[in-house]
Amino acid sequence: MGGGFSLLTAGLEWVEKRGGGSRALRGEGRSMDYAKSFAAALQALKDEGRYRVFADIRRDRGRFPAARHYRDGETSRPITVWCSNDYLGMGQHPLVLRAMHEAIDAAGAGSGGTRNISGTTHYHVELEAELADLHGKEAALLFTSAYVANDTTLTTLRKLLPELVIFSDTKNHASMIAGIRNGGGEKVIFRNNDLADLEAKLSEVDIGRPKVIAFESCYSMDGLMAPIAAICDLAQKYCALTYLDEVHAVGLYGERGGGIAERDGVMHRVDIINGTLAKGFGIMGGYIAGRRDLCDAIRSYAPGFIFTTSLPPAIAAGATVSIRHLKASSAERERHQERARALKRRLKAVGLPVMDNPSHIVPILVGDPVLTKRITDALLDRFAIYVQPINYPTVPRSTERLRITPQPQHSDADMDALTSALITLWHELGLPFDYQAEAAE
Amino acid sequence: MGGGFSLLTAGLEWVEKRGGGSRALRGEGRSMDYAKSFAAALQALKDEGRYRVFADIRRDRGRFPAARHYRDGETSRPITVWCSNDYLGMGQHPLVLRAMHEAIDAAGAGSGGTRNISGTTHYHVELEAELADLHGKEAALLFTSAYVANDTTLTTLRKLLPELVIFSDTKNHASMIAGIRNGGGEKVIFRNNDLADLEAKLSEVDIGRPKVIAFESCYSMDGLMAPIAAICDLAQKYCALTYLDEVHAVGLYGERGGGIAERDGVMHRVDIINGTLAKGFGIMGGYIAGRRDLCDAIRSYAPGFIFTTSLPPAIAAGATVSIRHLKASSAERERHQERARALKRRLKAVGLPVMDNPSHIVPILVGDPVLTKRITDALLDRFAIYVQPINYPTVPRSTERLRITPQPQHSDADMDALTSALITLWHELGLPFDYQAEAAE
Repeated sequence: MGGGFSLLTAGLEWVEKRGGGSRALRGEGRSMDYAKSFAAALQALKDEGRYRVFADIRRDRGRFPAARHYRDGETSRPITVWCSNDYLGMGQHPLVLRAMHEAIDAAGAGSGGTRNISGTTHYHVELEAELADLHGKEAALLFTSAYVANDTTLTTLRKLLPELVIFSDTKNHASMIAGIRNGGGEKVIFRNNDLADLEAKLSEVDIGRPKVIAFESCYSMDGLMAPIAAICDLAQKYCALTYLDEVHAVGLYGERGGGIAERDGVMHRVDIINGTLAKGFGIMGGYIAGRRDLCDAIRSYAPGFIFTTSLPPAIAAGATVSIRHLKASSAERERHQERARALKRRLKAVGLPVMDNPSHIVPILVGDPVLTKRITDALLDRFAIYVQPINYPTVPRSTERLRITPQPQHSDADMDALTSALITLWHELGLPFDYQAEAAE
Repeated sequence: MGGGFSLLTAGLEWVEKRGGGSRALRGEGRSMDYAKSFAAALQALKDEGRYRVFADIRRDRGRFPAARHYRDGETSRPITVWCSNDYLGMGQHPLVLRAMHEAIDAAGAGSGGTRNISGTTHYHVELEAELADLHGKEAALLFTSAYVANDTTLTTLRKLLPELVIFSDTKNHASMIAGIRNGGGEKVIFRNNDLADLEAKLSEVDIGRPKVIAFESCYSMDGLMAPIAAICDLAQKYCALTYLDEVHAVGLYGERGGGIAERDGVMHRVDIINGTLAKGFGIMGGYIAGRRDLCDAIRSYAPGFIFTTSLPPAIAAGATVSIRHLKASSAERERHQERARALKRRLKAVGLPVMDNPSHIVPILVGDPVLTKRITDALLDRFAIYVQPINYPTVPRSTERLRITPQPQHSDADMDALTSALITLWHELGLPFDYQAEAAE
C-alpha cells in the first residue's frame, strides 16, 4: 500500500474519524486532504440541485425516437427520446449504417494513428473534400469533435496572427470560450446578436490589428439565430475575419444542408465555418472549412489536431454518405421544420412557457434547477418521456429549462403524449401557464 | 462579394501587385493581410523541411500491416505499414469488428448527444465499468480522445484543488502540456525520469499545498519507461497525487493489459491513470480511471467532458470487447514483444542507429528533418514501406528519427524487406552505421 491512492483514502478516513478538518497527517508533514476537496465540489452541485445524473439509454435502431432506459444497470423499459441532437435521425439512416458496415469490413475498426502518422485514410481525404464542397470552400479539416475544432482552431489563430483580438458573442459555446481563453491574448465580449455593441467594440481597436469575430449561427439553448450578413458587413468594414459555428445548423438549413449561412446566401462571406458530424449528420466528429492556406496552417500548427488519433474509417465513411444524402434530399429538413413548428404551436396553445425562437429548438422556461429536474424525473418515471434538464453552466442560472428537440420521426401521437404529460405536471407543481408571444427570455 | 473571405483575397492580390508589404488597403482603413500571415507560417515549415504531407492510405482488413497507398487521390498500390499505433492489430480483430457491427445494427450510428443530454448509452456505462476493472479502480470516465482526457482532466484539477502545483516530466505529451498550461497556475518541470530532480523540486513546495505529479509510463517517441514505483514513493513522501499517462502501454503490458503499472505491481499506488482506446485497443477514444469521487468531480466540472457529443455506441462496444479479450489473452502481448525484440536485433546487428529502450517502440536516429523525410519518401516510393518521418515539435530538433512500430502481424519476411531497404538507403545517403549499445540519445 501507500502512494497517492492511499493518501486519498487516508484523507477520507481522517475526516470520518475527526469529524472534519481540511488536512490529514501523513508521512513527514501535513498532507492535503484531496478527498475532501472533491467531496466539497460535488456537494456544492448537490446543494444547488444541479448534480447531474446521466440517463442510461439505448436506442432501438429503426424505431428511434423509441429507446430503452436502463434503471439499475440491467433491466430496461421503453421510452421516447425528446432531447437528442441527432436532429434529423440520420444516425439511424440505412445508407449511413451501410457505409459504416462496409468501411469496417474494408478497413477495420480504428485508423491506427494520428493524421500524420498512418492515420490519414482515404475515407478522411474524401470526407474533407465533401465538407469543403458543402460549404463552398477550398478546404476542410477534420477534428475528433467540433469542441476540439473550436478550441484548437481559435487557440492556434493566436499563434498565426500575433496581436489578434477575438470578438466573442456572450452566448458562444463553451468550446469557443475555451479556445479563446486558452490561446491567451486579448478578447472582447459583445452582447448576443447585438450589432451596435459589436460595432462599438470593433471601432475601438486599431484597424491594423488582426481581428476575428467568433459567433454561432444558431444558439443551441435558445434557438436564436445570428444576423450573419450584418456581422459580415461589420467584419468587412473593420477588416476582421469571421469565424462561424454552425454546429446546430449544418445538415438542417440551406438548400444542400450547408447551414444558416447557406440559407441566407452568405456562406461565401464567412471566412471560417465550424461544424459537427455528430448532430445533423448523426455520427461524431467536427471540422472547419475555409481557405486552403488557412486550413493548411491550422493543420500544421494546432496541437489538438496534430497529436490525436484520427476518426475511425467507419465514422468518416458514414459521415460522407450522410452529408451527400442531405445535399441531395431536402425531405428530412422540411419534415424537421414542420415538426418543430407543430410542436411549438401545440405547446403555446395550452400556454406552456415556450421561449420563442425561429429555429428547430423548443425550450420551455422553468427558471429553477430543482424544479426542472423534478419535471424531467417525473416525465421519465411516470410518462416514459426522456427530456434532460438544462441547468447552469449550460445556461445562465434562473433560466433553467426543458430543451425539447422534435425530429422528423416524432409522430402527432408522440406530441400529444408529451403535451399532455407537461400539462399534468405543470398543474401538479402549480407552475404558470403564461406563454406570451415574444415574452419568454 | 465582400466580407472576410474577400479580405483575404484582397490581401493576396495586393501583395502580388505591390510585390510585398504586410498590409492591404481596404475599406476605411489599412487592413490586416491575413493571407500573408498564413503563408509565412507555412513557408517557415517548408524552409525547415518539416512541412507535413499526410500519406493517404487504406488498410486491407484481415491483411494488416498490408494497406493501399493512394497517390493522386484515385489510383493506389499495396504497401506495408510500419508506423501504426494499432500496436497489437486489435483494430482488425474479428471479435472487435463483430461487436461494432452488432452495435450499429442495434443502436445506430452516433450517440446523438453529450453524456448528459441523451448521449449516455448502455454501451458507455459498460465500457466505463470495464475500464475501472482493468485498472483496479472504483471508476472510469470516457472522453472522445486521450488528448482531451489529459487536457481537460489536468485543467479541471486546478479548479478542484486551488493552489495546485503540477510537476510535469519534460517529455510529457502535448496533451498534458496543454492541460497543465490551460488550467493556469503553477507548474514545475522535472527532467525526464529523473527522481533526484523531481525530489529536489517537490521538496521546495509547501507540504500543505496540493500537488500532482504528471508523467507517462512509456514515452512514445523514445520508448523509455518511467520508474513508476519510485515516483509513487516520492508522491507519498511529499503528499502528491500521481497522474500517469499509460497511453502507449494499455493493452500491451501487464497480465491483463492494464499497462506498465500493472506489470510493475504498482497500479493501486497510482491515483489517476490515463489511457486510450485508439492504440493497444485499436479503435478510438480516451479515459481516466481512479477513485469514484475524483471521476465524479471531473465528470461534473470538466468542459471538455460536459460539452461534447459522446463516443458512438459502436466505438464503445468494440472497445469493451477489445479490452475483455486482452484481459484474458496474453498471446498478442507476447508475440508483440517478441517481434519488437526480433526487429531491434536485426537492425542493431547491421549497425543501424537504433535508439535503445526497453519497450516495443523502435526509433532510428537520423538527426535532420530533410534527411529523415528523404529516407521515408524513398521507403514509400521505391520499397512500398510506410514509415512516417518524426520531426519537431513531436521530438526535439536534431533528434529527428524514424519511428518503427513492429506488430504481432509483421512477418520475418517483412522485417527482412525493411532491414534491407534501410541498409540500401543508409549506404546511398552516406549515413553512419554507428549503432552502439546505450549510445543513442
